[in-house]
Amino acid sequence: MLNKDLTKNQSLYSHALYFDPINQARVPGGNGRLHFKEFENVPGFRILDNGDVEITFYAPGAETVQLKGFGGSLPGYYDFEPVKEMPGYWKTVLKGIRPGFHYHTYFVNGVETIHPQMPVGYGGSYAVNFIEIPDPDFTDYLLKDVPHGSVHMEIYKSSITGRYRNCWVYTPPGYEKNTDKRYPVLYLQHGGGENETGWLWHGKINYIMDNLIHEGRCKEMIIVLNCGYNFKQVGEDRFILEDIDEVICKDCVPMIDEKYRTINDRNYRAIAGLSFGSIHARMTALGHLDLFSALGIFSGGFSYKSQGTLGVDSLGNYDYSETFASAEIFNNKMHLLFVGMGDKETEMVEVAKPKADKLASEGYNIVVRTYPGYHEWDVWRKCAVDMLEMLFKW
Amino acid sequence: MLNKDLTKNQSLYSHALYFDPINQARVPGGNGRLHFKEFENVPGFRILDNGDVEITFYAPGAETVQLKGFGGSLPGYYDFEPVKEMPGYWKTVLKGIRPGFHYHTYFVNGVETIHPQMPVGYGGSYAVNFIEIPDPDFTDYLLKDVPHGSVHMEIYKSSITGRYRNCWVYTPPGYEKNTDKRYPVLYLQHGGGENETGWLWHGKINYIMDNLIHEGRCKEMIIVLNCGYNFKQVGEDRFILEDIDEVICKDCVPMIDEKYRTINDRNYRAIAGLSFGSIHARMTALGHLDLFSALGIFSGGFSYKSQGTLGVDSLGNYDYSETFASAEIFNNKMHLLFVGMGDKETEMVEVAKPKADKLASEGYNIVVRTYPGYHEWDVWRKCAVDMLEMLFKW
Repeated sequence: MLNKDLTKNQSLYSHALYFDPINQARVPGGNGRLHFKEFENVPGFRILDNGDVEITFYAPGAETVQLKGFGGSLPGYYDFEPVKEMPGYWKTVLKGIRPGFHYHTYFVNGVETIHPQMPVGYGGSYAVNFIEIPDPDFTDYLLKDVPHGSVHMEIYKSSITGRYRNCWVYTPPGYEKNTDKRYPVLYLQHGGGENETGWLWHGKINYIMDNLIHEGRCKEMIIVLNCGYNFKQVGEDRFILEDIDEVICKDCVPMIDEKYRTINDRNYRAIAGLSFGSIHARMTALGHLDLFSALGIFSGGFSYKSQGTLGVDSLGNYDYSETFASAEIFNNKMHLLFVGMGDKETEMVEVAKPKADKLASEGYNIVVRTYPGYHEWDVWRKCAVDMLEMLFKW
Repeated sequence: MLNKDLTKNQSLYSHALYFDPINQARVPGGNGRLHFKEFENVPGFRILDNGDVEITFYAPGAETVQLKGFGGSLPGYYDFEPVKEMPGYWKTVLKGIRPGFHYHTYFVNGVETIHPQMPVGYGGSYAVNFIEIPDPDFTDYLLKDVPHGSVHMEIYKSSITGRYRNCWVYTPPGYEKNTDKRYPVLYLQHGGGENETGWLWHGKINYIMDNLIHEGRCKEMIIVLNCGYNFKQVGEDRFILEDIDEVICKDCVPMIDEKYRTINDRNYRAIAGLSFGSIHARMTALGHLDLFSALGIFSGGFSYKSQGTLGVDSLGNYDYSETFASAEIFNNKMHLLFVGMGDKETEMVEVAKPKADKLASEGYNIVVRTYPGYHEWDVWRKCAVDMLEMLFKW
């Protein structure tokens, strides 16, 4: 059962466009009323005490308004009904949806659209709405009354594509005061169709770190979020995807080591990624053992040898067999290979897990975990928490 | 005349949801093709060489697609036409629009919506699209090949409302290396219906600073962007707007002075704001002269005495006459009062400007500037540039 504190947690309402919603403009007759001291608000969504979610959509003139899950977490379509006492407004209640993160889209008169008052993120390669129902059994990602680290945006140039990139960097509370202290670094990659903002606004990795550090559950570390797409423009509307491990290792890692007080040593540098990003993490770690000594695969495949089928050499064409030759060889090179997945991700559970389990049972530094769920952020946050608790304790 | 370099500047394409667009998912038949090395892209918009803008909208099943300016910068409605060779896609060309920043919204079958492939910001108290056409005569806000500072997100608690807030902080290039150096601070406020992200993603103040510092045109300083709305929840959907100057002075300034290497001295602390934010800036500076010694009013009123008509004491009920008693008294307290506005903002030009001009002519430390334009970001960026060039040179 939820309680008010959980449903009101501010982390559920923050996203890239705002930390605190205003929404006032969409109150009927509300034009300019923010100049007044007290005002009423029609929230885009309201988490009810039983965990159901009421969503309000201002769509005057619409004939139908619908909501549809994206990524599989909400089944089917939800129909909105017009609200008689509030002309132009439509409402629906999502009943019995499970806690967690839900990408979804809206259809007004059958045309897909964005709800301008709901949290907006980047998923499926475009702006998309999401909603978050708190889980009383997993609150590590909520904004709690603990010391908060900082999140930094850095801009750097890809020497490979000539384009500028940005990355987001988390530093623990006290980083700016403890000027003699140096920190290990975890690079953390998003999934397909998402980008560098994913682990920040969807994964809420900054709150996860704040909470884990406060509870003494993980080492203090720096976390770096990069975009997994390394574009090179080769024509008016034509792009090449250059290898992401190259830009991370050649351009980003040196920039981070120069700008932040890192421990510039492979033993204190790790990388993890989810789904598509697990491919990036694998090629970055196993392809650059001079720089990395730990790897996290969240909802990704488990293989160390493959012949190119994906069209990008480094994604589909690699052979890391040497590193996996024996437990002794592997453990000499890798402190940790963390493999996590949702227990309802059939292919992962049936294909990737047995392979990883087998090596783990043979003494490789491999940890395998499953979590209730599908291919979704709820699983990836839990992967991150468990891996963070293990990282750099060697 | 534009040139390719200007129309391709990455700062025109970045926003809160992404630094670099992907867009691939909206290419017909493009599902999953990002796994391939080379792919084609259908951009949400394309700035043509003559400055016109072609906008593409994927709205299969729509009967009409329209675009409408928001805030007055684009006149009337623009109609989209279906693209025969690309089912589901619609196109229009914005002809002859002037360079600069344009908020706008879309109407699909007459219902207002968001274009998920166009830059999305926060304006009018909800998510809203914008577009940016570069101005060859004003490029200070573009991403150039110069050293780049960092942008930091800090979370702090309002002692007045009990709610968490965030703010964005710009630090100049080299801040993390010059550990003996301390910096002056400018607090910079957004306008009504916008928020703390406005000066970052709309104003592009980080690029402005990078460029001005590189060209030796301004002092190195820290810039802090706060949300001007200080909400306190007093009922299920009922909010009180608490005074913003209190949370800035009591909660934010001490946090910034603790966490950053500021010069903690009123002579090195300034605040400026645009429109609604100019009210916040005025009450913060003139109401807290122990902390501030410079003020910027961008497209705002010019008054130092008012009796509450707006319902919020500190917004509409103040009397700073004492500070304005004479040029000598004023100049003893204030190093600078910068008053900037668009030359087409009739009320500002006819009411605020003459008042400010008169005092300036009497020797007050007041600078008055007008810029071509309306109530819009193009004017506010130029206000910021001119004020930055004057700040802390005393």
